Amino acid sequence: MSHGKQKQHVVGVDLGGTKILSAVFDGNLRVLSREKKNTRPELGVEGVIERVAECVNEALASAAVPHTAIAAIGVGVPGMVDQARGLVRIAPNLGWHDLPLVKLLERRLHFPAALINDVQAGTLAVKHQGAGRKLQNFVCMFIGTGIGGGIVLNGELYRGSSGMSGEIGHMVVVPEDGPKCGCGNCGCLESVASRGAIVRRVVTAMEKGRKSVVWDLCDGDTKRVRSRILAEAYREGDKLVCKIIDDACNYIGIGAANLINVLNPQAVILGGGLMQALGDKLLSRIRKSAMAHVIGASPERVRIVDSGLGDDAGIIGAALAARAMVEARRR
Amino acid sequence: MSHGKQKQHVVGVDLGGTKILSAVFDGNLRVLSREKKNTRPELGVEGVIERVAECVNEALASAAVPHTAIAAIGVGVPGMVDQARGLVRIAPNLGWHDLPLVKLLERRLHFPAALINDVQAGTLAVKHQGAGRKLQNFVCMFIGTGIGGGIVLNGELYRGSSGMSGEIGHMVVVPEDGPKCGCGNCGCLESVASRGAIVRRVVTAMEKGRKSVVWDLCDGDTKRVRSRILAEAYREGDKLVCKIIDDACNYIGIGAANLINVLNPQAVILGGGLMQALGDKLLSRIRKSAMAHVIGASPERVRIVDSGLGDDAGIIGAALAARAMVEARRR
Repeated sequence: MSHGKQKQHVVGVDLGGTKILSAVFDGNLRVLSREKKNTRPELGVEGVIERVAECVNEALASAAVPHTAIAAIGVGVPGMVDQARGLVRIAPNLGWHDLPLVKLLERRLHFPAALINDVQAGTLAVKHQGAGRKLQNFVCMFIGTGIGGGIVLNGELYRGSSGMSGEIGHMVVVPEDGPKCGCGNCGCLESVASRGAIVRRVVTAMEKGRKSVVWDLCDGDTKRVRSRILAEAYREGDKLVCKIIDDACNYIGIGAANLINVLNPQAVILGGGLMQALGDKLLSRIRKSAMAHVIGASPERVRIVDSGLGDDAGIIGAALAARAMVEARRR
Repeated sequence: MSHGKQKQHVVGVDLGGTKILSAVFDGNLRVLSREKKNTRPELGVEGVIERVAECVNEALASAAVPHTAIAAIGVGVPGMVDQARGLVRIAPNLGWHDLPLVKLLERRLHFPAALINDVQAGTLAVKHQGAGRKLQNFVCMFIGTGIGGGIVLNGELYRGSSGMSGEIGHMVVVPEDGPKCGCGNCGCLESVASRGAIVRRVVTAMEKGRKSVVWDLCDGDTKRVRSRILAEAYREGDKLVCKIIDDACNYIGIGAANLINVLNPQAVILGGGLMQALGDKLLSRIRKSAMAHVIGASPERVRIVDSGLGDDAGIIGAALAARAMVEARRR
């Protein structure tokens, strides 16, 4: 087999409910170019796929890499995927259910496509290029619209008995009268500490008359409140936002401590939009809360660190999924 | 090597802070005889070892198995053990610290001895002879004086990055103003749902004037309150005991749900003294609480069951450790 003739580049796409990130990678999985678009799920399946295709084509153009150089595309999806059959089983934020996404993407883009769950993608990225590079046992916590987790044990992604492991956002941290969570249960970590929960709490308090600089930062349109605005309000010392984010950090610390007590990992690694915007400020608070709840806490016991990948975790993980598929087919 | 001449029997000892259980096992790890003694840790190391030796010798006598037929003894210890060096690193309930228990036992009993942590012993027993026999991924929760956990992933006991995994009793289930736990932190599962915590809560309430049949059942000596008395009061419908045990079951259910959400095991398997005394009554309540907190709960999602081994889990696991040592030395 002639390796010299093989296509080496891959494309990684992080297809979120809010935005699409795409990137072109060379054979060493270095990023050559990045693009970003709003997802606009209200456009429906064909509309979203068209936006993915545009985002990919723009990334190819800005990297000056021809279509013919691309071995495969990997797509991280916020939901359950059936990798073998190329299906999105369920993706609530996109409103998709049993969608043959691989077939639709291949028809539009003419690359072989591989799907991966977005959190598993992020965890693989942390293992290959982030803070988990030299670790055998660690847990990732991704704090975004929701809270997702990835578990690496003995150097391998641990998927659980039916691929449903890592639902760390649904650990119970408010056992009595906790807020309703998107999953239908109450008091989940995600219901008090995700960016979504933080935004909801801030907006609800403002609607009840609490003052906050967030009003000005979002020009009175609370739908525009995202990590960047929260980070700005937090840095300005806005009382409402500081209280709600600090509460969230305490709960994230409890969640991290639970994972440490149960799994004894070498590290808990934090990622996601809010961490990227406010990482340093949040990390020390999360660490303090975690260490108050870890049994036998000591600095050597476990590290609690940032992923080191920022927004790139999803696209890198998607690119890894693409490369893994290509390698499996060449064998 | 002549297998016919090899010693096939082993002894398993479950050395708890309150009582010592010993049993003689044949080559197929079937129990031939059992004995039981109070530990009386106040007698000191030599005193406790003497009681272990008596308990073992009585079990040998009642099984009519000669000392010369015993290949090894395994001892489950409530604490951290260094298997390779034969040390008890720390066992708070026994007051032991860096104790060369293997050397002391071999000097007194003249069998090769192996140590194992009591919870790991129970988990191995569940995997080999209990409800985990046919499972690859499960979590054990042992509800006793404390609450310990064992994790089996891909068919193997998962020990964590430094042998400290499975501290499920120290998951936080009361995040605000939770009771002080023996570990020094607050609001741990163990601080509200272990047998120790249940007894403390019942006794404290009685001392404050709450009525309960427990007063009569323990003849006014609250130090005598153990699983058996709690079980009797619960079956009689004693209001105080029912309330406190039902609360404990709710918290155990939350702990089980956290483990299910994070690890996606095939089963959560419950053991320990209180489960043996009240298993059927508690299981349905624990299941109900767990299912209210599991994401995507359904009957096929996960099983929550009793270990099926009762008090024998510890001695069986200790016997397995003894046999594993013998087999390793024969290789």
